[in-house]
This record gives sequence, C-alpha cells and structure tokens, in this order.
Amino acid sequence: MDLSSFLTSLGTSFLIFVVLMWIFACLSSKPGNDVVYYPNRILKGLEPYEGARTRSPFTWIWEALCSTEADIISMSGIDTAVYFVFLNTVLGILVLSGLVLLPVLLPVAATDDSVSNQSTSNGTFSNLDKISMGNVKARSPRLWAFFIGTYWVSFVTFYMLWRGYTHVSELRATAFMAADVKAEQFTILVRDIPPVEGQTHKEQVDSFFKAIHPETFYRSMVVTDNEEVNKIWEELEGYKKKLAQAEAVFAKSKTTSQPEGKRPTNRVGFLGLIGRKVDTINYCNEKIKKLTPKLEAEQKLTIREKQLSAAFVFFNNRLAAASAAQSLHAQMLDTWTVIEAPEPRQVIWSNLKMKFYYRQIRRYMVYVVVALTIFFYMFPIGFISAFTTVKNLEKLLPFMKPIVHQQVVKTILEAYLPNIALIVFLALLPNFLMILSKAEGIPSESHAVRAASGKYFCFTVLNVFIGVTVGGTLFSASETLEKDPNSIANMLGVGLPRNATFFLTFVALKFFVGYGLELSRLVPLIIYYLKRKFLCKTEAEFKEAWAPGDLGYATRVPNDMLIITIVICYSVITPIIIPFGMAYFSLGWLIVRNQALKVYVPSYESYGRMWPHMHSRILAALIVYQITMLGYFGVKIFPFTPLLIPLPVLSLVFAFVCSKKFYKSFRYTPLEVACLELKEMPNMETIFREYIPPCLRSDKFEIDEHFEDARSSQDFRTISFV
Amino acid sequence: MDLSSFLTSLGTSFLIFVVLMWIFACLSSKPGNDVVYYPNRILKGLEPYEGARTRSPFTWIWEALCSTEADIISMSGIDTAVYFVFLNTVLGILVLSGLVLLPVLLPVAATDDSVSNQSTSNGTFSNLDKISMGNVKARSPRLWAFFIGTYWVSFVTFYMLWRGYTHVSELRATAFMAADVKAEQFTILVRDIPPVEGQTHKEQVDSFFKAIHPETFYRSMVVTDNEEVNKIWEELEGYKKKLAQAEAVFAKSKTTSQPEGKRPTNRVGFLGLIGRKVDTINYCNEKIKKLTPKLEAEQKLTIREKQLSAAFVFFNNRLAAASAAQSLHAQMLDTWTVIEAPEPRQVIWSNLKMKFYYRQIRRYMVYVVVALTIFFYMFPIGFISAFTTVKNLEKLLPFMKPIVHQQVVKTILEAYLPNIALIVFLALLPNFLMILSKAEGIPSESHAVRAASGKYFCFTVLNVFIGVTVGGTLFSASETLEKDPNSIANMLGVGLPRNATFFLTFVALKFFVGYGLELSRLVPLIIYYLKRKFLCKTEAEFKEAWAPGDLGYATRVPNDMLIITIVICYSVITPIIIPFGMAYFSLGWLIVRNQALKVYVPSYESYGRMWPHMHSRILAALIVYQITMLGYFGVKIFPFTPLLIPLPVLSLVFAFVCSKKFYKSFRYTPLEVACLELKEMPNMETIFREYIPPCLRSDKFEIDEHFEDARSSQDFRTISFV
Repeated sequence: MDLSSFLTSLGTSFLIFVVLMWIFACLSSKPGNDVVYYPNRILKGLEPYEGARTRSPFTWIWEALCSTEADIISMSGIDTAVYFVFLNTVLGILVLSGLVLLPVLLPVAATDDSVSNQSTSNGTFSNLDKISMGNVKARSPRLWAFFIGTYWVSFVTFYMLWRGYTHVSELRATAFMAADVKAEQFTILVRDIPPVEGQTHKEQVDSFFKAIHPETFYRSMVVTDNEEVNKIWEELEGYKKKLAQAEAVFAKSKTTSQPEGKRPTNRVGFLGLIGRKVDTINYCNEKIKKLTPKLEAEQKLTIREKQLSAAFVFFNNRLAAASAAQSLHAQMLDTWTVIEAPEPRQVIWSNLKMKFYYRQIRRYMVYVVVALTIFFYMFPIGFISAFTTVKNLEKLLPFMKPIVHQQVVKTILEAYLPNIALIVFLALLPNFLMILSKAEGIPSESHAVRAASGKYFCFTVLNVFIGVTVGGTLFSASETLEKDPNSIANMLGVGLPRNATFFLTFVALKFFVGYGLELSRLVPLIIYYLKRKFLCKTEAEFKEAWAPGDLGYATRVPNDMLIITIVICYSVITPIIIPFGMAYFSLGWLIVRNQALKVYVPSYESYGRMWPHMHSRILAALIVYQITMLGYFGVKIFPFTPLLIPLPVLSLVFAFVCSKKFYKSFRYTPLEVACLELKEMPNMETIFREYIPPCLRSDKFEIDEHFEDARSSQDFRTISFV
Repeated sequence: MDLSSFLTSLGTSFLIFVVLMWIFACLSSKPGNDVVYYPNRILKGLEPYEGARTRSPFTWIWEALCSTEADIISMSGIDTAVYFVFLNTVLGILVLSGLVLLPVLLPVAATDDSVSNQSTSNGTFSNLDKISMGNVKARSPRLWAFFIGTYWVSFVTFYMLWRGYTHVSELRATAFMAADVKAEQFTILVRDIPPVEGQTHKEQVDSFFKAIHPETFYRSMVVTDNEEVNKIWEELEGYKKKLAQAEAVFAKSKTTSQPEGKRPTNRVGFLGLIGRKVDTINYCNEKIKKLTPKLEAEQKLTIREKQLSAAFVFFNNRLAAASAAQSLHAQMLDTWTVIEAPEPRQVIWSNLKMKFYYRQIRRYMVYVVVALTIFFYMFPIGFISAFTTVKNLEKLLPFMKPIVHQQVVKTILEAYLPNIALIVFLALLPNFLMILSKAEGIPSESHAVRAASGKYFCFTVLNVFIGVTVGGTLFSASETLEKDPNSIANMLGVGLPRNATFFLTFVALKFFVGYGLELSRLVPLIIYYLKRKFLCKTEAEFKEAWAPGDLGYATRVPNDMLIITIVICYSVITPIIIPFGMAYFSLGWLIVRNQALKVYVPSYESYGRMWPHMHSRILAALIVYQITMLGYFGVKIFPFTPLLIPLPVLSLVFAFVCSKKFYKSFRYTPLEVACLELKEMPNMETIFREYIPPCLRSDKFEIDEHFEDARSSQDFRTISFV
C-alpha cells in the first residue's frame, strides 16, 4: 500500500466521521429524539440535559471532559468507571511512549538512507516505511535508540498498569464499603448439594448451614427446575401484554365519530393467521383467568417437588456472607461448593444445577472447541490478508483486471476491502463465543462475559494480528523465497513494517467509522422509529423500543485489546502508529464517556472484576511485543539483542507480583471491607425476595407465604436462629 | 552382574538381618534396656510390655500384626497412621500387580528363547534377565501380555490411591472432630502486618481483628524478636542444669566414710579448662540470682519494644478460627495474610517475621539452589554407576587387577560397593535439604519436612533412578556405540532390564540391613550406654539420653518413594522385582509398626498433611513408569505402542480429580468438621499460654501479668469481647 491510498483511506474515514458528527448534532437537539440520545438520564429521572434547549453542537464534548469519575459511577456504575481506568491506562502508556519515541525514533529512522536507497529500486518501500525501523540498516549503531525505546515502552506499561490496578482496587473497596444494602453481599451460592435419602434439598441446606452458622444464617432458597412454571408464566405474560395492547387499540378507536369504538379481534390459530376469529380483549381475559390458578399450582409444585442441587443461602450480615463464601464447607470438595452469589439480575439460572465434574468436563470441552475455532478460522483470515494488495487480486482473479485498473476503484479497494471484510468477519464471532462461555456452566452473566471476552482476545490476537502478519508476509514474499530461501529473515524484517501500514488503516477505519456510528446512534434511532410506527401500542412497549442496552464489554474490550496489542507491538518498529492509537483511544474515551453518561444503562454490576483480565491481557500484549522485538533486532543483526531477554522475564515477574498483591481481592470480598457498618438495618425479606425468579413471584401473597411451607417452623422474628 | 553375585548379595544381606534380629531378641528382653526398646510406652506411662517378662522373641511380630489403626493413632498419632495407609496402599498395589503379573509374565518371558540365544553369545544376558521383558523378541505377539500388564498396574494404582485418599480424608476429619481441645484449632497465624505510625503491632492486631470478628476474637499474641531474651534464658537454663548436676555429684560424694562429701568445683574460663577455680554450687546460685532479674527485665522489654510483624490470634471457638484462617482479610493481599496456626511445638519462630515478597524471593532462590544441587550431583552418581561392574573397575584402575581377580573380593565388590557408596552418598543430603526448606520462610516444622521430602524425592528419582539407568547404560555401551550408532535404541532395550538387577540388589540391601538396624536399635543403644556412663548425672539427663526421636518422615518417605518408583517402573519389564518390593514394604510395615507402638514419639502432629504429597509422588512414579513403558515398547517395535498414550493422560486426569475432590480439605479445615461441639468449654487461657515461647514464660506470675500491659483494658471475664 502506498502513501496515497493510505491518505485516501484516512481522508474518507475522516469525512464519514464528520458527516456522522453533523448528523448527531442535528438529531440530538430534537426533543423527540431524547429517548434515543439521553435514555440513561431519562431512566434515572433526570432532565435530558442541563441548561437551555439551544446548545452548541459541541457542548457534549465539554460535558464529557468535565465529568468526574464520581459522575460516571453514579450514572453508570463501577464497571464503566473501570473501563475508563482501562482507557486512561492505555492512553497513558501511549502518551508517555509517544513523548519519547516520536521525537527520537522518527528522525533517527528517516535520516538513515542506506537501506531505503537500495530498496526503493525493488519497490518494496513506500514513503511511510521510510520513517520506520525497517529503514535503519542492519548492525547500525542507530539501533541503540530503538533498543532503549523498547525498554522505555515496557517500563511505561508497568508503571501505568500498577497505577491502574491500585486505583481499581480502591474503587472496588469503596464500592463494597458503601453503606447501602446490596442483596448479593448477604448471599452465597451453594452448589453440588449431595443427594440424601428422605430429605429434601431445602431441609438439607437448612440443617447444614444452621449447624455451621447458627447465629448468622438467615434463610435459604433452593434453586428449582423452573422450566414448566416458566412456560406457563411466559404464556400468561404474553396474554397480559396482548390484553394491554388490545385495550390501547380499543381506546384509540373511540373517536368522536365512533364513540363506542371498534373492538379488536384476532384469530386463534397458527401465528394469528388462521383459525376462529375472536374478540381479543375477552379472549385474553378468559385465558388469563384460566392460566392464573394453573400458574399458582405449578409454582407450589415446583417449590416442593422440583428442588435442584443448588441454593442461595442468606446471612444476616455482610461479614458472615463474605466469610462463608471463602470457607471450605465440606470435607469432600466436590460437594457443598460455595461462592459469592452473583447479583440477582445476572444469575444464569439454567447453569446453577450443573454438577461439579460435569462443569469441569464442559469447561475443557469448550476450550477444545474454542481452540479448534481459532485454528480453523486461520484459513479464511489468511485468505483475506492475501487479498490485501490489489496486485494479488489481479493475480488471483485476472478477469477483474479492467475494473481494478481504474484509479478510483483501485484506491478504494486497496484502502477498504480487506478491512471491511475483516471487521464483518469478526462481528460474527462474539455471539458464538458467548454461547460457548455460558455452556461452561458459569453461574453469572458478568463472568460469562469475561470468559467470552478472553476467548475473543485469544482469537483476535492469534488470528488477526499474528495470522495477518505472518500470512501476509509469507504470501507476498513467496516469489522471493523461491529465488533465495536464505532471505526469510530479511523478508520478515521487510514484511513486519509493511504490515504496519495495513494495521494503521485498520485502526483509522475502526475509530472514525466505528465511533462515529456509535455516537450518532443511527441504527438504534432508525429501529426506534420503525418500532414506534408499526409495533408499539402501549407505554411499556414504547419504553422497550428505546431501551438503550449496555456497553457490551464482551466485544468492546477485546476490540480495544486488539488495537492496543497492534499499537504496542509496532510502537518501536513504526512509531508513527502511536498517534493513531492515541487518537483511537482518546476519541473512544470522549464518545464512550458521552454514551456512558447519557445513553447506556449497565445491565449488571461486577465491581470491576473485568480489570484483572484487562490487566493480564495488556501484559500479554506487552510480552508479544517484547518477543517480536527480540526477533526483529535479531533480523537487524544487532549484536546486543540478548540484552532484551530480561524484558519478558520482567513482565512475568510483574504479572506474578500483581496477581499476588491484588488478584485474590477481586475474587473474594476481603473481610476488612465487608466489616463496615451499614447505614440501616438491612431488610432481609427484601433481599430474599430479590432472588426469587420472576416466574415464581406472586402478586397475591405479599410475604410469599408459599415459600413458607418449605421454611422452618421457627418464629420469623428470631432472625439469627432461623 | 551375574546370578551368583546377586545371590551372594542377597544371602549376606539376609545373614546380617538374622544376626540383627537375634541381637534385638536378646537385648530387648533385658529390663535395663527397656528405655531404649519401649520408650514410647514408658513416656505414655504404660508398662513396657503387657504380660509376662519371659516372652518368645517373636511376640513383637504378633503384637504388631494384631495392632489396629486406633492403637497406632493413640500411641503415635495421625501422621503415623497415615504413613501406614501409605504402606498399605503401596503393598496393595504390589500384591494386586504381582498376583497377575508374576504367574503370567514370567513364563511368557522365559519361554521365548530367540533373543536370549542370540545375546548369550554377546555375554550381555544373565540368568535373571531371561525372565524379563528383554528376553522377548521384537514384534512378538507375546508383547500383548506385557501391554495388558502395563494397563493392569496403572489401574491397580489408581484404585489403591483412591481408597487411600478417601481413608486418609476420613482419618483427618475424625481427628479434627475429636472433642478434645487442641490449641492450634483456636488459633490463626497472621503475617505481614503492615507498619503503621504511632501504633504498636499489638494495638493494630487487636483493633483490626476486633473490628472484623467482634464476637469471636479472644486475644492476640504478637511475635517478638526473642534473640536477646533467648540468649539470657539459655544461659540461665545452662546454670540451672549445671547446678542440678553439681548437687547430684555432691550428694553422691557423701559416702559413709566422707559424710560431708566433696563440693564439686570448676574453672570459669574457656570451656572450664582455664581460669579461676570456684565452688560450682555457689557459683551457679550466684549466677542464677544475677540472671533472673535480668531475664525478667529483658522479657518485659521484648514484649513492649520488639514486636515483629507477625502474630497469633486466638478465637473463642474452633469454627471462627477455621473460617478466619480461610478468609481474605485485607484489600491488599501482601498485608494481613492469614493461615491456620501450626501446633505450638512445631512453630519455626525465626521464620514468622519474614515479609511476603521476601518469602517469595527466598522460595525461588531455594528452588534454584535445589535444581543446581540435583544437576551437579549427577556427576558423582554417574561416576558411581560407572563403577558398578568390576570390569569397569579393572578398566579404569588397572593396578587393582590382581585384587579384583580373587573370586571372593570380586563377588563382594560387585554386590556391595556401588550400593554402599550410593547409600552413604544419599545420607548426606537430607539435612542440607531441610536447612534449605526452612530457609524458604515456612512457618511450621511439619511443612518444612514436607518441603524437604519433596526436594529429596526429586533428587532421588532424577539422580538415582534416571541417572543410574541412563548413565550406566550409556557408559557400558559406549564401545558398542562407536561401532554402530544406530544401536542406541537396542542398547536402551538391553540396558534397562540389566539395570533392574542393580536396583534389585539395592532394594535387598536396603531392606535387610536398613530395617535390621532400625529394629535392633544398636546405635541408639550404644549412645545411650555411653551417655549414661560418662555424661548423665541427674534424672532429667538420663531421660534425655534415651529420648527416642520421631519417625523422621523427611528421609523415610522419600526413601520409600525411591523404592516404589523403582519397583513400579520395572514391574512389567522385570516382574521378579515385585516380590522384592513386597518384601521390602511388608518388612517395613512390620518393623515400623513395632517402632511406632513402642519406640518413636512423634514430635508433632500434622493430621496427615503428608498424604497428598505421597499421593502425588506415587502418581508421578506411575507417570514415569508409563512413559518408560511407552519408550520400551517402542524399542521392542510393538506395533500397538501408541495405545499406551492414553495412560499418562488418564493419570493426569486422575491427579486432577483427586486434587479437586480432596486436596483443599488438607489445606484448610472444612467448616463442617470444625463446627462440632466440644466436650468441655475450652480454657482459653491455657490455649493462649501454650503459644508463649519458653524464653518468655515466667514462673513468677502465674497469669503472666507481664502480657497484661500489652492487652486491652477490658475485663478478662467477658472473653468474647477481649
């Protein structure tokens, strides 16, 4: 890729971004669109924006820049704040690296003419490559500058990561120490309850935990097999929704001309297309009347008969729960396994019943599937990288020659085709990985997201980064190889910097177009308008139509990770990539900040448990970088290359120290943190009720008496002994 | 080594054993020797033996066979019982393997003549080798029998190990559930107390734990730097001992002829050899009078001023202590690290103060030192194995030819020289490894023993087993190699079975001579008589002279491990090794049983925490065996060799399942176990006092008031809030 096609790519990306910004400025100032551009504020009961209606289209930038971490936490929770710590850390790494590398390495590389003169004749060097390390001749003393740069980037990364970990630890501790009652802090999740003859699981759990925690055990809730009851409940909810819809339609049809209105009707057959025509309101009322007692009966049956081998156990103080979740309860470790309970809203109910070894086996099977996926995706990605250059396209598809030879088409193809293919390709994967992660038997949504994002990271780094680099280099150099097999080392030395331009375009496309789309929210806006026009009848349905969703860490974080891996790896080889990385992450910071404050509503809170994963992946990227540099200095025949060997060792030591110092407190709640006084006596009944799955909730009995019969007969007031 | 020298070795070993048995029978029946042969019973206040004085010299065998596990536990503790579980497991493996392998494999090997005919001409095969797998020709269908044998041994091992683990788990749980009060069950060890300005560590610990465990915290004891006070205390104790000795001498000198006696005197200078002569009794009394107040002052100073960053924290019930020991206390994991407290008698005080990272660094440094030791010991061991054959001796030391050529000398040399050298050599190592393990910063004696025994196991397996096999084979085959380098595979195929005879002799020597010496207790007996004659004056000194010591797991277990590794590895190749292994372990069982019941007094109790180590090392031996078999079947060009690959994988899965199911309950006390009621209210004061190091104990204040001033001012009776 030459300079002009690179600039074209950059230019068009920027143009698209400006257009999207303009669209955002126009649309977001219309009051009708508030629910799309300010849903988080609306749901929190705030005005869409502070101050006057007529605002400059750039006010949001100012607001994002002025917002503090406390604002983020209050609007969007700890997880989002931790995501910003991640962005800050990455930006810090890039800024500190860039401050030293750019002014030093660019001139050092550009003024060394020996290699470029020689290679320009071969046509392998473009203008961009002149300011990269590839331009420095082998054995040159100028390599010392790059050598020091390699160390500098590593130490900057260590420093920023350490700061980040400390800060996130504090954030997490502060959140835990907060005086408001959180249900999950009083609860532990018990799995693998061993089967005992003549005792229900409920009785078992109660007697087991009462014996061990006589003073702090409050109550237990055995997980039940809700499949049947859920089906009935969903049917009932469906009819209720339909009834509300029909009533809304009926009310609307009562115009002044037709004061009695027109009662809506529907067909009872398949998909409402065939069968008898009935009055919808009457039909639904009838169905609801019939299903309600059926649901109640099924609820009772489920609670009594369908107990599974998992339970939530509630304690009457946070300390007891935190301590119990960390302690070994049974002699045999594959029974009575305990962990801290996930938040009620992120429990994956269907996974709770899985038995110990079954979970283990599933986990390893999933790992095998993921490994296979990563391995076999290699082929299509290798194919993509083969198409990267137009020359290859011509060579492989000769019939396209006349089209490709038009200058405009050629430039666009060169700039975009491979990138778009890559991006579309990657978009297919996350859902698959999420399904796989849930199949591991993970009990909480946030944990599944972390697992999926880890798999996605492995995938992107192994396939996109390493695959494209090695594959692309090998492909384009295959001719050279035939002539002189000894030039493999040289070929890598030339190929690595050239691939840098590919990644440069990739980063640029990603940040301008991706973030532009995210800010302008064009897709949700269109969907919202379509839904409002054709589907929504009731207030609840309108609300559902503009529900903003959350930040989507499962794909956002690995994508950022791919960028940071690329940027770190090329930081010394092609320092010009650093400003692009800085632009990507600062634009990301700005736009996600806006979205976090105004748009996205987090669907769960894991108190920053994502951080250790981010941390270790940045470190993994750093180690890939250090090994790449080792190899690349070897290619450049730098005599002091072995002096780089301490770097990966240092990274491993750093990872070890960090995990020893910080990690366990992300897994368990430290007692120091859990022992603080609460603002108010927690209402245990409310906490308990939060964990009842919706299909077992009952409007009728306010104190859910139907749980009562499975409960101990002791007086409710003597909490500590129940 | 040919058959005759092997039989000579066996014969003389057996002769020595018979002589030692006879010595034992004679000496143990003399009442004067009771303290050497029955010290455990005497210390427990029992009669040396039940029944009449005149007993058959073989009664002890009967008694050992009749004793139950409960007897062992009551006489010698759980650790010893677990050692017998280990012996039973190993015996079980050998008996079950032998039952199938011996009657099947021996005839299969012996009747296949093709190879032996061919090799006898080369002189590489002895009679013993004829009944080994080396005698079966390559590609023979008879290899199927050995193949099935390989699987059989593996599954027998899995089965016995699983049984063993279950049994030890139960033993441990029963011991923990026992209703008698054990100080360590109420105590946790806190390390890495962070330094805080203007607060002593004592105040810190008290406030920290009172906040977290308000109802169960009883009291804390900060570890102090006792170097100074210990020096004074030891000096004082020395004078007290000397005084008692002098008084005993003085009392003895008061004969009827000299009723006033002769007051003993000594010189005050270097080693009592030079300097002024003084009256010992007066001198000691004076010194004691002077040192006592000095000690008290130093004790007070130590407790107030020399607090270190570790502490024992006492809880008023077992459950609270067990739960606290498993919970994360501080946000930063390198501060306030907690573990279950070791027994008072096995605390390694000097290690408690070490800081977190310092411990980690020391640990890795120790690993490096051990690795170097293992690597560089290779050379001497290789040298030993080179001397294994007399032929080599002749070759290397030609001047010894005339001596070596005498038949008697030759036989003895062949049988013993290498073995004795090896045994003496290995005897030097354990102390070194123990010192290294303690240097890791391990807080308890039993943990240090486990660490040392692990290192010793690595050493023996890597050096003795693999070193001798590979080294010996390569050395003797070096001539063949020069002629035909392709014969390496053949050479291994021939060399492996031949080394088996070396190990066979090694095992035989070890069990007959080693166990004979242990049973007869000749060395302790002689030392006891010498001490009684020349050194002991007072009752306490006599008692010290016959103190029996403990079983010495640090060397006993790895030695057994070496034998079981050898036997398992050769079980299929040379099945005749199995009876030798059986003899070794059953003789060991019998003799150690006798010693455990009557002689050794355990110096600490770790409730079977040695077991997981034994378990994983037997598994390691099994994996070495499986890999050896893979290679050996390869040498035999058996076409179905790849069918053995599942075996090591299965072993790893088995190890994984066992560690998941059992291991953590060896590290922590399960709450299920700790929650049982105690027989009596524990006396917390006694528990607390057990942990006071002897040099800080004071006879004067019964309630050790000098600890009081560092204690909280609250009333002592309100235990739960102190």
